[in-house]
Amino acid sequence: MAGSSFGNIFRLTTWGESHGEALGVVIDGCPAGVSLDVADIQAYLDRRKPGQTRISTPRREADAAEILSGTFEGRTTGTPILVLVRNTSQRSADYSEIANYYRPGHADYTFDAKYGFRDYRGGGRSSGRETIGRVAAGAVAAKLLGEFGMELTAYTKSIGPVTVDMDKFDRQAIRTTPTCMPDAEASARAESYLADCMKNYDSAGGVIECVISGVPAGLGDPVFEKLDANLAKAVMSIGAVKAVEIGDGVEVSSRHGSENNDPFRMQDGRIVKAANHAGGILGGISDGSDIILRAHVKPTPSIFSPQKTVNRQGEEIEIAVKGRHDPVIVPRAVVVVEAMAAITIADALLMGASAKLENLKKIYGR
Amino acid sequence: MAGSSFGNIFRLTTWGESHGEALGVVIDGCPAGVSLDVADIQAYLDRRKPGQTRISTPRREADAAEILSGTFEGRTTGTPILVLVRNTSQRSADYSEIANYYRPGHADYTFDAKYGFRDYRGGGRSSGRETIGRVAAGAVAAKLLGEFGMELTAYTKSIGPVTVDMDKFDRQAIRTTPTCMPDAEASARAESYLADCMKNYDSAGGVIECVISGVPAGLGDPVFEKLDANLAKAVMSIGAVKAVEIGDGVEVSSRHGSENNDPFRMQDGRIVKAANHAGGILGGISDGSDIILRAHVKPTPSIFSPQKTVNRQGEEIEIAVKGRHDPVIVPRAVVVVEAMAAITIADALLMGASAKLENLKKIYGR
Amino acid sequence: MAGSSFGNIFRLTTWGESHGEALGVVIDGCPAGVSLDVADIQAYLDRRKPGQTRISTPRREADAAEILSGTFEGRTTGTPILVLVRNTSQRSADYSEIANYYRPGHADYTFDAKYGFRDYRGGGRSSGRETIGRVAAGAVAAKLLGEFGMELTAYTKSIGPVTVDMDKFDRQAIRTTPTCMPDAEASARAESYLADCMKNYDSAGGVIECVISGVPAGLGDPVFEKLDANLAKAVMSIGAVKAVEIGDGVEVSSRHGSENNDPFRMQDGRIVKAANHAGGILGGISDGSDIILRAHVKPTPSIFSPQKTVNRQGEEIEIAVKGRHDPVIVPRAVVVVEAMAAITIADALLMGASAKLENLKKIYGR
Amino acid sequence: MAGSSFGNIFRLTTWGESHGEALGVVIDGCPAGVSLDVADIQAYLDRRKPGQTRISTPRREADAAEILSGTFEGRTTGTPILVLVRNTSQRSADYSEIANYYRPGHADYTFDAKYGFRDYRGGGRSSGRETIGRVAAGAVAAKLLGEFGMELTAYTKSIGPVTVDMDKFDRQAIRTTPTCMPDAEASARAESYLADCMKNYDSAGGVIECVISGVPAGLGDPVFEKLDANLAKAVMSIGAVKAVEIGDGVEVSSRHGSENNDPFRMQDGRIVKAANHAGGILGGISDGSDIILRAHVKPTPSIFSPQKTVNRQGEEIEIAVKGRHDPVIVPRAVVVVEAMAAITIADALLMGASAKLENLKKIYGR
Repeated sequence: MAGSSFGNIFRLTTWGESHGEALGVVIDGCPAGVSLDVADIQAYLDRRKPGQTRISTPRREADAAEILSGTFEGRTTGTPILVLVRNTSQRSADYSEIANYYRPGHADYTFDAKYGFRDYRGGGRSSGRETIGRVAAGAVAAKLLGEFGMELTAYTKSIGPVTVDMDKFDRQAIRTTPTCMPDAEASARAESYLADCMKNYDSAGGVIECVISGVPAGLGDPVFEKLDANLAKAVMSIGAVKAVEIGDGVEVSSRHGSENNDPFRMQDGRIVKAANHAGGILGGISDGSDIILRAHVKPTPSIFSPQKTVNRQGEEIEIAVKGRHDPVIVPRAVVVVEAMAAITIADALLMGASAKLENLKKIYGR
Repeated sequence: MAGSSFGNIFRLTTWGESHGEALGVVIDGCPAGVSLDVADIQAYLDRRKPGQTRISTPRREADAAEILSGTFEGRTTGTPILVLVRNTSQRSADYSEIANYYRPGHADYTFDAKYGFRDYRGGGRSSGRETIGRVAAGAVAAKLLGEFGMELTAYTKSIGPVTVDMDKFDRQAIRTTPTCMPDAEASARAESYLADCMKNYDSAGGVIECVISGVPAGLGDPVFEKLDANLAKAVMSIGAVKAVEIGDGVEVSSRHGSENNDPFRMQDGRIVKAANHAGGILGGISDGSDIILRAHVKPTPSIFSPQKTVNRQGEEIEIAVKGRHDPVIVPRAVVVVEAMAAITIADALLMGASAKLENLKKIYGR
Repeated sequence: MAGSSFGNIFRLTTWGESHGEALGVVIDGCPAGVSLDVADIQAYLDRRKPGQTRISTPRREADAAEILSGTFEGRTTGTPILVLVRNTSQRSADYSEIANYYRPGHADYTFDAKYGFRDYRGGGRSSGRETIGRVAAGAVAAKLLGEFGMELTAYTKSIGPVTVDMDKFDRQAIRTTPTCMPDAEASARAESYLADCMKNYDSAGGVIECVISGVPAGLGDPVFEKLDANLAKAVMSIGAVKAVEIGDGVEVSSRHGSENNDPFRMQDGRIVKAANHAGGILGGISDGSDIILRAHVKPTPSIFSPQKTVNRQGEEIEIAVKGRHDPVIVPRAVVVVEAMAAITIADALLMGASAKLENLKKIYGR
Repeated sequence: MAGSSFGNIFRLTTWGESHGEALGVVIDGCPAGVSLDVADIQAYLDRRKPGQTRISTPRREADAAEILSGTFEGRTTGTPILVLVRNTSQRSADYSEIANYYRPGHADYTFDAKYGFRDYRGGGRSSGRETIGRVAAGAVAAKLLGEFGMELTAYTKSIGPVTVDMDKFDRQAIRTTPTCMPDAEASARAESYLADCMKNYDSAGGVIECVISGVPAGLGDPVFEKLDANLAKAVMSIGAVKAVEIGDGVEVSSRHGSENNDPFRMQDGRIVKAANHAGGILGGISDGSDIILRAHVKPTPSIFSPQKTVNRQGEEIEIAVKGRHDPVIVPRAVVVVEAMAAITIADALLMGASAKLENLKKIYGR
C-alpha cells in the first residue's frame, strides 16, 4: 500500500531511510507559477537540523537540499518537484546490535511483524530523518500559502513541566532559543530540566502549538476531508505524537455550550467571530479566524538507562540504548508540525478551487 | 472534491442530508464471503437512534436500514454494499428561519463561504444524521473484524464533570444506561447534571473512549498511513470532536521516557508488552496490545438561551435556537466513534494483505 | 479494493446488481450551483432503456430515476448526489441454471475465480444494468459541461459490415433510429443485418464514435492523468469494449509524420489547428479542437445457438443461453460511451482548476 | 493535481524533465521481500537507451540507474523505492528556439494553455525521457511478477507497412534486431523503410504487441478497475499512443458472437479456454489465458521537413525542427509498453489479495 503519500491534489511522497544514500520527497500537484528557490527549502530544513545545540543529537548532517525537477527559471512548473538530501554522517556500526532486538517505544517489533524484516540501521524508514521530506514539502506549501497572505507560527508550548508564559511571547525568540520556546526565560528553565533528564539517562516530552493566520473562510470539506480531520492525521502521522487538539481541544469536553460557542459579529463590513474557542474551523471548514492546533509529543524512547525487552529469538534481555539521541523530540519537531500544517492547508486550498460553479467560471471564463 | 469517502481499500462514501428523502452509505472493497444481514446493521443504527431517552432529541425516527446491493444469500459478494435509511420525521418548518442567519458553533457560515448557498434544513449535510452512513459501514467493518477475533468497546468516559469510575466498569451497562457510561451510578449523576443544563437552556460536552482488543501486531503503515494517524482522522472527522488521544495521549507530554516506554516480554511463547502507555500502536503499526483512543466532544452548539450572531445581510442579531436538540452529543456519538474505529482497522487489515511477498504467496500459492 | 469508483475530483461510485432491489450511483465532488433536475437524468437513462425496439431485449424496465440527495431548490449543493433506480422486471428464474456453469464470453468464471462465488442472477454485478449508474452520472457531467459550452455527440458508426455514410450524417437521427445511426438508410440496412443474426441465433458487434465539441485547450495532465489515457480507461471499462481509438487511432501506425501532424494556424485572433488527426488531444492535454474517440464493441456473448463450456463441477457440457438478450450491444451502449466521456472531461475540468497560481488568485482574490 | 502517479497499491510517481538534473521514479507499495538489485533495473533501462542504432537518436546517455532507498541486503523492504538517473547529455542550445513557437504534434501549445509557461528544453516534462521512471518501475514489477511465474513479451508488430510474420517469430530476436521485431528479415525491410523516411526528412509509426503469460485467473476488478481498462489507461498514457486493443481488438466489431466467444474446456483437471479472442480478460478479470494487447503508435512528430505553425506572439510561421530525433518511436517504446503492462498487472495482483475473506484468513491465520 502506498502509505508514503499525503494529500489529495497537493500530494507528496517521502522516501528514504536513515542510513541509506539519501532521503527526500516528490511533491506532485503544486500549481505552476509559484516562485521557488532551493534556499526557500534549505531555510526550513535548517530548522530541523541536528547537532545545533546541546539538547539535540550530536549527529551532524549538512542536510543540504537539491531540487532535481519541477522548477524552471525560479518558478514551479506544475510538474513534480523532487527534493533530495544526501546522508553524510551515517555511523551504522552504532546500530548493528539493534538488528537483533526490539527497543521499547520504537517500531522495531512492529516493522518485523508487518514486513518480516527491516532496515534496522538508525531506525531505517521509521527514523525521524524521514521528516526531511515533509519539511521540504512544507517549505513549498508555505511558499504557496504566502501568496495568499497566510502565515504559520509553530513553537514549543511546553517541555516536561515548563510551559511558556503567553505574556512573554516573543515571535522572534522561537528561532533563537534552543527549545523553540517564544519566552527566553522559560526556555532557560526547560534547558535546565533537560540537563537533569540527561544526567538521569532519561528523556522528556512536550507540547507543540501551531497557529495559522490569514486563512480565508471556506477551506476544507464537510465530511471526511474536514480540515481539522486532515490536520489531525497530518500531525498524528509525525512519530511520537500521541494527541492532537484543535482550538480549545480537550478543554471543550468539560464546558457548556454557552461558553464554548463563538458568536459572530461584523467588523469593517466583514463577518468575524468574537471568540475563537473553535480554533478557526466549524463543521470541518475554515471560518476565517486563526487556525490553532496542538500536538502532544511523547518523551524520546531512546534512553540510556537499562530497559527490559526481548530479542528476535524470543529471549527476555536487558538493554541500554546507545547512539546519538535528543533528550526531547519537541524542538526539532516544531518545524515538522508547521510543515504538515502548511501541506494540509495547501491541499485544502487547491481542493476548494472546484467547490462551486462560480469558481470554475472565473477560471474558464464563460 | 470527493470528500465524502473514507478508507483506501475498505472504502465508504456517505450521502444524504438531514431533511432529504434518505441518507446512507456505499461500502466498496469489503471482501467477499463475510456473513452479513440487515439485522447486523440495524443493531448498530439502533444505538445512535434519537428519541430513546429524555437526554436525546425528541425527534423520533425509525432509522430502518435497507441493504440494496452487495450481498447474496446472506454473504457479502465483494461488490458495493448500499445501505439506505429513509428520513421520516422531517419538520423542516422548525428550521426555516435558520436559512437566513448563522448559528454560532455550527457550519452554516462556513458552508455559505465554501459553496455559496446551503441546504439549511436541519443542518443539511452537516447534520449529525450524516453519521447514519458511518454507523452502517461500521457495522459491516465490525462484522469483518469479528471474523479475526477483534472486538470493539466504546463508551462514555465523562460528561461535564462526571467521569466514570473504572473500578465499577460494567461492559453490559454501556448499552443500557442512557449516557452509555459503564457505571450506573456515574450515569445517574451525569443525567442529573444534564437535567440542570437543560434547565439553564444550556448544553454539555464529554469524552468517549474506545478500546479494540484482539488486533494482530503488524496493521498500519509506517509513514502517513499510520494506524493512529488514520484513527485520528477518522475520529476528528466526526462533528463536534475537538481532540483525539491515542493511549495515554495528552499525559505523555509531561512524562519521562523511562515511565512511558512499554517493555516487551514473553508470554506463552509470544512477544507481548508489560505495559500499554502507547495504546497498542508503535511507529504507526499495531503492536498486539489493545488499541485505545479517546475523543473529546464539544457541548451541543444548539442551545436555547439567546446568542449574538449575524445574518446573511450582515446585520448583527440575537437569536435563540429552536428545534429538537440533545443537551449532550456524547451518548449517541459513542457508536459513531466505535464505527469509525472499526472502519479504520478494517481498512488497515485489508491494506496489510499485500505488505510482504510471503503473504501473496500464501494467497496465489506459488 | 474500491473498484466501483471513477474520477479524481468529480468522482462516482456505482452500486447494484441486475436482479437486486435497485441500482444507482453516488456522485461526489460535483461543484455547487449546477442546475439539476431528475428530468435531466431521466432523459439520459431513457436512451439506454431496454424494450424499446425489436433489436433490444424485451425485458421492460421503467428505469425511473430518483435523486435522494445532493440537490436543493433545483441546484447541486456540492454534496454527494445519490441517484437510485429500482429494478422492477427481474425474472430470476430465467437465470437459475447459469448458477452452475460458465457462459462463454461472460464474467461467470472469472468472478468465481476472484471472489469464490457470485450473484449469478442476470449476471449480477457484471450485468449491463450496472451502466445505469454511469449514465445517471454522465447526465450530471453533461449538465456541468453544458455550462461551459461543451457538447457531446455519440452515435453508432458501424454494426457488423454496415458503416454510416458521413455524407448523410443527421444529428437528429441518432435519437430516432433504433440503431442510433445518424443515417436512416444505413440504419435500415443494419436492422436487416441484425434480423439475419437473430434468425441464426447469433449476434453482432459494432463501433461507437463520440465527438466532444467546445472543449477549451488545457484540460488533462501530461503524464498518467492524460486526458486520452483517462478516456481510454473510461471507455474500456464498459463491458464488451475491446479497443479504444483517439482521433485517427489505428490508422496513425501506418502514416508518415508529415501526414499526421496537425499544423497550427490563426483564426479570428485565436490559435487553432488546420487539421485534427490527433482527435483534440496533444501530450495528454486538450488542444481546443473537437475530441474524437471510438469504441469497438464485441458481439453480444449471449447467443441462443449451442456452445461448449464447463460447469462448476469441472464437467464439459453444451449449453444454449436463454433469457432476454439484445442481438447487438452497440445502440444501447452509445449513451454509456457518451456518459463516460462526459464524466472524464468533467473531472479534467475540475482538476484543471488548480493547475496554476493565476487560477487560484482568480478564485481567492489576492 | 497529482497526475504523475499510477497504480492503486503498487503505486509509482515519476518525476524529472528532459534537460533537468535527473529523472526517476518513486515506487511505493511494493511488497517486502522481493529480491532486487540495480542490475535488474539497468537491464530494462538499457532496452530504451538512445544512441544504440542508426534508427534511434544520436543523443547518447549512459542512463545509469541508482537505487537510493527501499532495498536492504538485496531485497525490497516494503518502503518507497527511489530510482534516479542523471541527465548527462543535455544540449539545451538545440532547443532554445522552440521556447517561442508551437511544434505540430507536440505538447508545447497545450502545456502553455494549461500552465501558462513551460520548461521547453527538450520537451521538458513531456519528453520521452519521462518514461525512464516508468521503465525502472516496470523492472521492479516484472521482478515481482516473476515470483509468480508470470512473463512479459513485448515486441514490434509493425513499422509503417512492414508487419512481422508470426511464422518466423523468434523471441530472442526481439532484443537483437534494431527494430525489436522478432523476425530478422522483416526487421531488415523495416530498417530500409525507415532509411527512406529519413531521406525524405519524414518519420513512421507502428504497432507494439505485448503478451503476458502465466497470469492466474481472478486478477482485476469488475467495474472501473477492470484489468483491461487499467491496461488501456497505462498504455494510452505513453506519449504517441493513439489506440489500444485487447485480444482481437478492433476486429471484434465485425464479428458474430458465435465466432468471438471463447469456449471453456478442461485440461489436466483445470478450466481453460479453447480459444483466446478475448485476450485473457473476461468482464475485466483475468481468465488464465495469455493477456494480449496492442498499442498503435503515431509517427515521430519531430520531422526535419518544413511545417506551418504559430508562435507565442500569434504569428503564423514556417519551421523545420532541429535536434536529435528517432525516425520512429516504436522500437524504444517496446520496453515502455512492457513496463506499463507489468506495473498494471502487479497492481492488480496486490489489489486481489483482499478480494475475499478466505484470502485474509490465509494471511492472518484465523
